[in-house]
Amino acid sequence: MSLHPTIAASRVEGTRVYNLTGEKLGTIDDLVIDKRNGHVRYAELEFGGFLGLGTDRFPLPWSMLTYDTEKDGYVVNLDMDQVRGGPRHAADAPRDYSEAYGRGVYDYYGAPWAI
Amino acid sequence: MSLHPTIAASRVEGTRVYNLTGEKLGTIDDLVIDKRNGHVRYAELEFGGFLGLGTDRFPLPWSMLTYDTEKDGYVVNLDMDQVRGGPRHAADAPRDYSEAYGRGVYDYYGAPWAI
Repeated sequence: MSLHPTIAASRVEGTRVYNLTGEKLGTIDDLVIDKRNGHVRYAELEFGGFLGLGTDRFPLPWSMLTYDTEKDGYVVNLDMDQVRGGPRHAADAPRDYSEAYGRGVYDYYGAPWAI
Repeated sequence: MSLHPTIAASRVEGTRVYNLTGEKLGTIDDLVIDKRNGHVRYAELEFGGFLGLGTDRFPLPWSMLTYDTEKDGYVVNLDMDQVRGGPRHAADAPRDYSEAYGRGVYDYYGAPWAI
């Protein structure tokens, strides 16, 4: 964790995500924001593919991501199978921005939902 | 305001910002996130220039922005002179991510600072 408490969204996008054993899970493609209270709801993970085209996006609750300065990436306590078995949407599909969808993501990962 | 409470950061970036009289102030270039609690701290406004190069960035407290579906942009209760007289940094300068800087931005616009 850096000494400074904030980071630009554009710097988060493209950052790698690792699990606790150091395995690279993917990279963050986008953040999804709650417009009412300005909370980051989740980070959307992608696993790669040419320019990320055609690959699915896997929303992770933001609270599960911890920045690791040595790795220059985020660490989550998840393995690949948990993520691959979780909520996903096609990269080019219209996103479901509803609260019900968000709650489903949080429920899957057992993260507390807080408005 | 859309029926849905969330939006992707990548969709916020590039969105126009207007004042109450409908004057275009600029576009949002980036969002700055508080890593500890996942709050969007501020939206960085730019006034234009070729591809935005060389223009300054003006951080606005996120809570001041209201989305207007008709305009397909955000509306703020500010005029151009208030923004131009406010905190700014060069687009290519290293950002100051400190809390002191953030509080200065909120103080300038009279927005309540909440962690």
